[in-house]
Amino acid sequence: MIDGTADPNGLPGPVLALCGGVGGAKLALGLYQVLAPQQLVVAVNTGDDFEHLSLSISPDLDTVIYTLAGIADPVRGWGRADETWNFLASLGDLGGETWFRLGDRDLAMHVERTRFLKHGRGLSEFAAHAARKLGIGAEIVPMTDDRLRTIIVTGEGELPFQHYFVERQCAPEVTALRYDGAEHARPAARLIETLSDPALRAIIICPSNPYLSIDPFLAMPMLRGALARSPKPVIAVAPIIAGRAVKGPASKIMTELGIPVTTRSIAAHYRGIINGLVVDIGDADEARGLDIPVLTTPILMRSRADRERLAREVLAFADDIAARSEAAAPGTASVPIDSAEKKAL
Amino acid sequence: MIDGTADPNGLPGPVLALCGGVGGAKLALGLYQVLAPQQLVVAVNTGDDFEHLSLSISPDLDTVIYTLAGIADPVRGWGRADETWNFLASLGDLGGETWFRLGDRDLAMHVERTRFLKHGRGLSEFAAHAARKLGIGAEIVPMTDDRLRTIIVTGEGELPFQHYFVERQCAPEVTALRYDGAEHARPAARLIETLSDPALRAIIICPSNPYLSIDPFLAMPMLRGALARSPKPVIAVAPIIAGRAVKGPASKIMTELGIPVTTRSIAAHYRGIINGLVVDIGDADEARGLDIPVLTTPILMRSRADRERLAREVLAFADDIAARSEAAAPGTASVPIDSAEKKAL
Repeated sequence: MIDGTADPNGLPGPVLALCGGVGGAKLALGLYQVLAPQQLVVAVNTGDDFEHLSLSISPDLDTVIYTLAGIADPVRGWGRADETWNFLASLGDLGGETWFRLGDRDLAMHVERTRFLKHGRGLSEFAAHAARKLGIGAEIVPMTDDRLRTIIVTGEGELPFQHYFVERQCAPEVTALRYDGAEHARPAARLIETLSDPALRAIIICPSNPYLSIDPFLAMPMLRGALARSPKPVIAVAPIIAGRAVKGPASKIMTELGIPVTTRSIAAHYRGIINGLVVDIGDADEARGLDIPVLTTPILMRSRADRERLAREVLAFADDIAARSEAAAPGTASVPIDSAEKKAL
Repeated sequence: MIDGTADPNGLPGPVLALCGGVGGAKLALGLYQVLAPQQLVVAVNTGDDFEHLSLSISPDLDTVIYTLAGIADPVRGWGRADETWNFLASLGDLGGETWFRLGDRDLAMHVERTRFLKHGRGLSEFAAHAARKLGIGAEIVPMTDDRLRTIIVTGEGELPFQHYFVERQCAPEVTALRYDGAEHARPAARLIETLSDPALRAIIICPSNPYLSIDPFLAMPMLRGALARSPKPVIAVAPIIAGRAVKGPASKIMTELGIPVTTRSIAAHYRGIINGLVVDIGDADEARGLDIPVLTTPILMRSRADRERLAREVLAFADDIAARSEAAAPGTASVPIDSAEKKAL
């Protein structure tokens, strides 16, 4: 154990997970299952947030909350289990917009969030409130309380994220991505506090889409700087297996942007930020040439056992990197970019 | 037929119904069933409207729309048939306010209305849109697009209508009623246009609560004036049978305000506005002393047949009053308050 043994219960310090929606939420759930609740802070992408039907909608935040609360729909991959759709059917009868599918149970989150925000209470406060009400012991934090919106620049013009992702089903060809508001957005207070916590054990970048889910975090200069300078191990789990995205449009977008769909591209994308990369066991050959520490292990999470095993392995990998760094430079836990592994190149 | 034969189809001119929620909506439905759709304009109380969960809610307007669209719940007496309550259950899980029961299907109306209003489109436009989308041929018009709110002054202080009616279940003793904003509210444009239509056949005040549902109309000086001066027959249907309100808190409120729960009180309440009163056959003796034309007939509406019969009788009564007035003073259809019936006193 590197730091965090200051905890009166003898627990290691907190782990900070950064994630987007479904894929990332699976590892966040794995971490939640293997850590004590107070050992986990999950910071969630809000670049996908949007206003729809005059409601404030935060798709990734809700996916993480529903997943950790155990009420996410296991089949559909989004929204709540045991959902009904009577609101949407009636809205359609009234001629309203139904392309974004809001379930009856899910809608409560949007209505209550909209009410919170309208009364000047921030997204962080709502996320903490909702998580507590739904029995989640871990902290769930939006990456920012400020407005930051992912814009997809396509051959058909610029599209707000949900219009690209849901309404257009990712069909338009992506030529660039933009994160409106990122330059001036402040990372959420709890995210900065957690990053600055001397007891922090590790920062885990979950297997979310690097461009759509993680880059909105990194587009905030203060946060990118804090991650790059952090003395704690920053570990990313690749969202790619055998040259294909595990889920969602990552491969399509990478291809359209001219980026090879490889773990090497992921490593290059996070260069200067991460101290270790977790890749699938099947990608071990490809990963051998990477200039950072790599853990190869099965990363596809199909079951609770898969999630827990991966979470434990990722944590052990982070602890190992921290220990090696500590041994190399006592008093810090940072892994310089020119670590031993780089020489393997 | 008095006026309105100018219609190219030879139909009598339009009928304007003023109503509140459930009781009034039954007669509005009866009128809708016996008239051609274009012959009916229903103006609806908006004094009960309120903002809840950051949504704009218009309970009476929705009751009338659901009733005429044939999708009102026939048992509960409010809201929609085949309703589900998953939104409300989830809202409760989030610690939200659940005292006002919003069904999943019903919620679409509030979300879409809130969106309309937020985009600067008035309540009249939304009501017309919703009615058309739900297949209603008649016009449904809120009494005003301006803010007018019924406030219940009670022994426990002032209460907004829905807090008195739903949250407190009408328990606090009423000492007075107030209609905030009425002094400056303009009646809806279509309501004024209909009242000014030379072809107008009759104005029917439906059997709604005079204090809670009709007084908000009359509290608008321009509308009270237009009704009092109208040359067309204005007919009220009593909401009281045998000394008791047919539905809702009218008897309780009248008692608390020191007003006898009688048809005579209803006649006195509408004095100067109405030219005829329809009372229950069982109240014939009591009604004999009234100083306006009275139609006595069974007014309890339990079935479609009841509604249609009452609607036809009310229209015939109005036509008869108009004809008698026309005979007495050719060229107008007004019934002076000192009509023949007054001498019966």
